[in-house]
Amino acid sequence: MGSRGNIINSKFPKETSRPRVVIVGVGFGGLNAARNLAGQDVDVLMLDKNNYHGFWPLLYQVATAGLEPESIAYPVRAIFHSSRNVRFRMTEVQSIDLATRKITTTGRPLTYDYLILAAGSANNYFGNDALAKQTFGLKDIEDAERLRNKMLLAFEQASTERDPDRRKAMMTFAVIGGGPTGVELSGALAELVHHVLVKDYPMLDIADVRIILVEGADRILAAFPESLQKSAREKLESMKVEVCLNAPVDTVEDDLILLKDGTTIDASTVVWAAGVRSAPLADTLNVELARGSRVKITPELHLPGHPEVFVIGDMAYLEGYKGKEAYPMVAQVAIQQGKHSANNILRRLRGEPVQPFKYFDPGTMATIGRRSAVLDAFGVQLSGRLAWFGWLFIHIMYLVGFRNRLIVLTNWAFNYFSYERGVRLITGRYLPEEDVSPASGE
Amino acid sequence: MGSRGNIINSKFPKETSRPRVVIVGVGFGGLNAARNLAGQDVDVLMLDKNNYHGFWPLLYQVATAGLEPESIAYPVRAIFHSSRNVRFRMTEVQSIDLATRKITTTGRPLTYDYLILAAGSANNYFGNDALAKQTFGLKDIEDAERLRNKMLLAFEQASTERDPDRRKAMMTFAVIGGGPTGVELSGALAELVHHVLVKDYPMLDIADVRIILVEGADRILAAFPESLQKSAREKLESMKVEVCLNAPVDTVEDDLILLKDGTTIDASTVVWAAGVRSAPLADTLNVELARGSRVKITPELHLPGHPEVFVIGDMAYLEGYKGKEAYPMVAQVAIQQGKHSANNILRRLRGEPVQPFKYFDPGTMATIGRRSAVLDAFGVQLSGRLAWFGWLFIHIMYLVGFRNRLIVLTNWAFNYFSYERGVRLITGRYLPEEDVSPASGE
Repeated sequence: MGSRGNIINSKFPKETSRPRVVIVGVGFGGLNAARNLAGQDVDVLMLDKNNYHGFWPLLYQVATAGLEPESIAYPVRAIFHSSRNVRFRMTEVQSIDLATRKITTTGRPLTYDYLILAAGSANNYFGNDALAKQTFGLKDIEDAERLRNKMLLAFEQASTERDPDRRKAMMTFAVIGGGPTGVELSGALAELVHHVLVKDYPMLDIADVRIILVEGADRILAAFPESLQKSAREKLESMKVEVCLNAPVDTVEDDLILLKDGTTIDASTVVWAAGVRSAPLADTLNVELARGSRVKITPELHLPGHPEVFVIGDMAYLEGYKGKEAYPMVAQVAIQQGKHSANNILRRLRGEPVQPFKYFDPGTMATIGRRSAVLDAFGVQLSGRLAWFGWLFIHIMYLVGFRNRLIVLTNWAFNYFSYERGVRLITGRYLPEEDVSPASGE
Repeated sequence: MGSRGNIINSKFPKETSRPRVVIVGVGFGGLNAARNLAGQDVDVLMLDKNNYHGFWPLLYQVATAGLEPESIAYPVRAIFHSSRNVRFRMTEVQSIDLATRKITTTGRPLTYDYLILAAGSANNYFGNDALAKQTFGLKDIEDAERLRNKMLLAFEQASTERDPDRRKAMMTFAVIGGGPTGVELSGALAELVHHVLVKDYPMLDIADVRIILVEGADRILAAFPESLQKSAREKLESMKVEVCLNAPVDTVEDDLILLKDGTTIDASTVVWAAGVRSAPLADTLNVELARGSRVKITPELHLPGHPEVFVIGDMAYLEGYKGKEAYPMVAQVAIQQGKHSANNILRRLRGEPVQPFKYFDPGTMATIGRRSAVLDAFGVQLSGRLAWFGWLFIHIMYLVGFRNRLIVLTNWAFNYFSYERGVRLITGRYLPEEDVSPASGE
């Protein structure tokens, strides 16, 4: 520890004997925990493999060319410029040893007095490696850009493809999973195709494009009231999205989805939005895990037997939502658990008893294209235009940073009035594959 | 050719017997050629390996976290929505056989009646492969993002580095080449460091940061009048950029620049902005090439002996600028040659004689940080704030697309008033390398 002073110059407060709180992950949970610890009598160290906080509820708009990736990401260091007790380190946490309070990272190992684990979620392929390889995820900025590139490239390839069957297969997009991510993504993709790409590719028959939402259960948006499930489905179908219910997926092979009942769906692009699990870091803790590898915690949000280790957000499994279910893996739970875990640490430092988590449920919402959303909050169930305005307002409010709000609003206004998607760029040095047989010259 | 009708549905005009003009490259030259051919009695086919037109004069702002990459790129297909005689294909042109009028691409081969070659430029390393490997270029969006990631990652690494010498080397950035690109990049980097990163990294002594502009000649901005060279240099030095003149570079090894006089400069990040050449496509033509592999053309902008093949912009070498020099590799020359080559094709189709290229010189400009630029136009030489407003106005004017103008203006206003750079994101799954020796735990 002695050499540490080397890199700390006079502008930075000297390391003190204050307790060190390490926060793993700067998503909704970690960020709000750090905000509540800023200016308090603790040293906070945030760790993340990215140097930014990502606003993942808008990822699907990045994937469908409506927003720049940069507009939904905000540099962590900028958020804590004025908080001298909050530091950040860009590193990937590999494992945690609870007994010795040691964190192994891709950089130097670290120790903690208090730990808040908020590393979020990962795709759950239920042990099927083929799914992981053959489908596109939508969990971070790189995923969203890769999906955008793939979907736009599919149209570039179709535009020079002469075989009608191959052309149709190229223009078939399947989204597996009828939760909010799958619903919002397929709706936004339908808009991109029918408002924008139809003008970009006059040589293609846009009626050949298929967007298929594949759901294993008998309904989409399972967490919503039945009336909103129905209106969401009707809205999607009016936008030419094929909603395929009772269709549990067995596996995905090259350009082919195999359903459990033996039928198949041809699709060149398959998105996996059907399962999430805790970040793999949970597996290194050697503690009891619940469904989706989520970490079982006490009502006070810490590990049983480890009052110094809090686990929050998507990583955590805590029953008590609506009396009995586990709290869902959504932003609002992470935000409130982030604040609560920070406050419980401060309570403990003051010698006060820690408090159980109490959730204020602001409701759920999903947007489905222009001027349409479904919203379920405070006993009110709304669909259509008013729900859409509510959705807009909430999302702008929770975006971090004035610049990001401005850029997102500018894009939304532009997209809304022009029926355009300015970000339909294929980046990263891809080229379409073409039939290059000698007879195919023009 | 018979199978071609397959993919053309009724919404798209049937292929006619009109002459086909193929344009290679959708930069300033190719884009303006296509615009002048839109609606005329020709079939235009544009080819580019990217699906967007890039506004490269602002690349340095992408590299220094001032703008999103997407804000300076515009989808080509969107530009020609209403021009039914202009088509686009995303493909990379590999070679051209002038005798058979055949274009080899990564997709299908193509033929042309008229050809406009506007493939732009590439970095010129003068045969030194080490330079190509050891330095960062700044020629396209991927280059700019890679440079942004590298520079920001250098600060992340420095923030955990305990060895003071290694830390200083990590925070040393060298830009080789004192032309407009090198001057604008080093100025923007100095602003990023001294306005923004100084707040992000309170544990670093920002006085350790070195930004070195390395120029072989005895002056920067060789194309500008002497008074502006001097004020640009003074401005850079006031921003703590070290301007290193009379320092021709021999080669670059790991984190080290070797100068021809035997001295060395330690720098973890080295940018190459000292030499450009024609796009490599020029080498496949088997025609006479001038300095920088640029293609010698007639005053009418076509290849000698090939009145059907026009070469324009950075690829072309034509003397006559200011009476004797070759036209410089700048946007304005490409724009005007693009229009002129298109008009010469139309003249030939009407049976009229083609005309020699006449250049209207709107002058040159370069910006050096906040409220400062140098401008030389119409006999007027300006530096400082007025030149900067001129620079702003011209660049917004030439950006393609209303959305991009809005987004760039929003960013500029935000950066100007907040002294921030919102896009300082490290994307693409990099992680800092850290000293992970066993003794280095905390």
